[in-house]
Amino acid sequence: MEFTTIRHDLEDGVLTVHLSRPDNLNAFTVEMANELEYTFTSVNTDDSVRAVIVTGDGRAFCAGMDLASDGNVFGLDESATPMLEDMVDLDDPSLEQIRDTGGRVTLAIHACRKPVIAAINGAAVGIGATMTLPMDARLVSTKGRIGFVFGRLGIVPEACSTWFLPRIVGMPAALDLVYRADILDATAAKDVGLVQSVHEPDDLLPQARALADAWTKGRSPVSVAFIRQMMLRNSAAPDPVDAHRVDSLAMFYTSIADGGEGVRAFVEKRSPAFTSRASQMPPFYAEWTGDDATSHT
Amino acid sequence: MEFTTIRHDLEDGVLTVHLSRPDNLNAFTVEMANELEYTFTSVNTDDSVRAVIVTGDGRAFCAGMDLASDGNVFGLDESATPMLEDMVDLDDPSLEQIRDTGGRVTLAIHACRKPVIAAINGAAVGIGATMTLPMDARLVSTKGRIGFVFGRLGIVPEACSTWFLPRIVGMPAALDLVYRADILDATAAKDVGLVQSVHEPDDLLPQARALADAWTKGRSPVSVAFIRQMMLRNSAAPDPVDAHRVDSLAMFYTSIADGGEGVRAFVEKRSPAFTSRASQMPPFYAEWTGDDATSHT
Amino acid sequence: MEFTTIRHDLEDGVLTVHLSRPDNLNAFTVEMANELEYTFTSVNTDDSVRAVIVTGDGRAFCAGMDLASDGNVFGLDESATPMLEDMVDLDDPSLEQIRDTGGRVTLAIHACRKPVIAAINGAAVGIGATMTLPMDARLVSTKGRIGFVFGRLGIVPEACSTWFLPRIVGMPAALDLVYRADILDATAAKDVGLVQSVHEPDDLLPQARALADAWTKGRSPVSVAFIRQMMLRNSAAPDPVDAHRVDSLAMFYTSIADGGEGVRAFVEKRSPAFTSRASQMPPFYAEWTGDDATSHT
Repeated sequence: MEFTTIRHDLEDGVLTVHLSRPDNLNAFTVEMANELEYTFTSVNTDDSVRAVIVTGDGRAFCAGMDLASDGNVFGLDESATPMLEDMVDLDDPSLEQIRDTGGRVTLAIHACRKPVIAAINGAAVGIGATMTLPMDARLVSTKGRIGFVFGRLGIVPEACSTWFLPRIVGMPAALDLVYRADILDATAAKDVGLVQSVHEPDDLLPQARALADAWTKGRSPVSVAFIRQMMLRNSAAPDPVDAHRVDSLAMFYTSIADGGEGVRAFVEKRSPAFTSRASQMPPFYAEWTGDDATSHT
Repeated sequence: MEFTTIRHDLEDGVLTVHLSRPDNLNAFTVEMANELEYTFTSVNTDDSVRAVIVTGDGRAFCAGMDLASDGNVFGLDESATPMLEDMVDLDDPSLEQIRDTGGRVTLAIHACRKPVIAAINGAAVGIGATMTLPMDARLVSTKGRIGFVFGRLGIVPEACSTWFLPRIVGMPAALDLVYRADILDATAAKDVGLVQSVHEPDDLLPQARALADAWTKGRSPVSVAFIRQMMLRNSAAPDPVDAHRVDSLAMFYTSIADGGEGVRAFVEKRSPAFTSRASQMPPFYAEWTGDDATSHT
Repeated sequence: MEFTTIRHDLEDGVLTVHLSRPDNLNAFTVEMANELEYTFTSVNTDDSVRAVIVTGDGRAFCAGMDLASDGNVFGLDESATPMLEDMVDLDDPSLEQIRDTGGRVTLAIHACRKPVIAAINGAAVGIGATMTLPMDARLVSTKGRIGFVFGRLGIVPEACSTWFLPRIVGMPAALDLVYRADILDATAAKDVGLVQSVHEPDDLLPQARALADAWTKGRSPVSVAFIRQMMLRNSAAPDPVDAHRVDSLAMFYTSIADGGEGVRAFVEKRSPAFTSRASQMPPFYAEWTGDDATSHT
């Protein structure tokens, strides 16, 4: 895929995805959605990537939907909805008819087998804010600003943000943030639990990279993929026995895959030499998470 | 409806509901339940109301179930259960047979299209405490007291409080609060995250009103209704793709309804003139939330 | 049942379960799993027990899976899987084929009718950490250490920990704890919300006992059982109306069982004399929670 709105930078197993429309404050377009969805889907089968960082080129992270993009100002899937005025069947809706474009991206991040870290270098507004919610941590520079501004525009929070946000900050803070629709500075975002840490601008990417290393370096990629998906999926099940079914199979599978080496290395007090590959996950995992984000349709 | 246990005060779009049995510390009766359920259902189709505040007349907020009310001391639905001793079929229970009266009220608040703010002016005990949990914020005066005292009476937490409370304070604090069954003062309630802010008594209602304004003034009522219901409903779905389905339709609908004006006003740096009405929500929304609380039966 | 890996100490209604393989840092074995599952199932019908404390003999709480136990180092259910190498049908998995042993224990704790308190006296690592998550509070001594170390061994978090942990510390902290796989000291565990309080070593068991008393002493055992199960089960339901169904029946049942006495005692300003027994719960409760942990299979 040829990228026109983002750029990739792979170094030592960490893929940094730069939102890269700096003259437009990295405003979100359908092309950017397609390129991000492609990125988070393709890293699943790319064993050279163990973690992903998302940041913005220039002074913004992502200033929200590009209000100049072809009239489809709210990021609905334009391939499915050539004209906003084409009515969908509201009584019997389906995702074939109309899809929120931001949700295509966040569902791909949700299904990703690698940890994803937001390095929020500047304004993250609208979809620029909600796209960070399925990520595993949000690090913010002192110049970062975050706003769920949908209410001021007469629209609604999207990109599955109403599913993710209460899991991060709790329900009372989630409601307050979205009702107020204010722009938070870095300190306010940290105080409410929306971001995990605040850094000087020059420190932001190094700290994000250090976190990616702490989470994944020298680890079994299959183990990491399972940890991420089990945490996000099992916790949402109505009954813990649903987690138990997955636990039992995943423990069985990883015991065979990398667990034996892990225990031997632990007993012998040496670093383990894991050999499993996240590109090759067991069938019960593929069925559970889908092979890629399109399985959500 | 003629009110005998509460009174309404509508000013500038904010409906203040006063629990008003001050000689009985606003103790909860079946009549009060009926009047509250009616209130929270009827505001959905009353476009003159953009937010609701609940407070108590006199020195209490609500001292719990009225233990003198006709022997039905635990607030079970007396129309369905003329005598507590009439056994229901415990093996095959249904909500037609018996309903927790407090739950009728909290489900109506849960389904409400307008933000609801508790202004806890004094003792909020039992159903007086649990009725505030589906509200969007709990503000408390320095004279407020909150207690989930069910355990001391040999009964159970009701009004869907076991669904709401862990979403507000997390599971460990929720268990501790209900097991202990102590009465918390305002500071303790704030420390545990149960209330969002503490105020001087004279400041309580002005601050609640200021919050209602910050959340709703000048906003699209349909956008606000969606935000509230999406946050409460989508977050409880087992999979974020369920949120994505709602997001896609709600973004589509609001883009047509008020979103165009919202963007134009933003670009033109002026206040938007929204025209949508929360009394008229799309059919997929009505199906999703029910037309009113009785859809829960 | 003859215990070989744990010991019981019942005093004034509080059962203290000591993990008791002190020469092996109380490392977890299949025998220990069986004895713990038996314990948490059998206390449900033992009316002499009103609360349970779990602690470790010697200097550790539980140092994790016993890596020397018969080659089944990851605690999979060996009765069902005589050889790890016997492949299960990954395309059509079932809990008859293979079960995570730790999950058998945590599901039994989840289904328990009595509050359960972890008194973490020393190292709690791997299953030693995850077994405490379905407990109602975690108290830790200044010598306590807690680590979710699975990632370092190339395996996955088990014992339904991905279901329980985000409910305790929130999603961002849960992900960070399990990705990092570090050992936390008592202060760090308190700061992240994983434990509720830190105590001097000599104070740990007395404080755990005081908490058990505060939660259960003089209370209706049926009321306590309902509170625990309603909190854990209702909160995970997709819709609060599911809580409402349980609330209605549980309030009806406890009103007949102990509620009348509870109200009379409250009105007469005396201690209530509750007579209900947690060994005898109504049929709708048994159906809801299962009679014991094996109902999860």
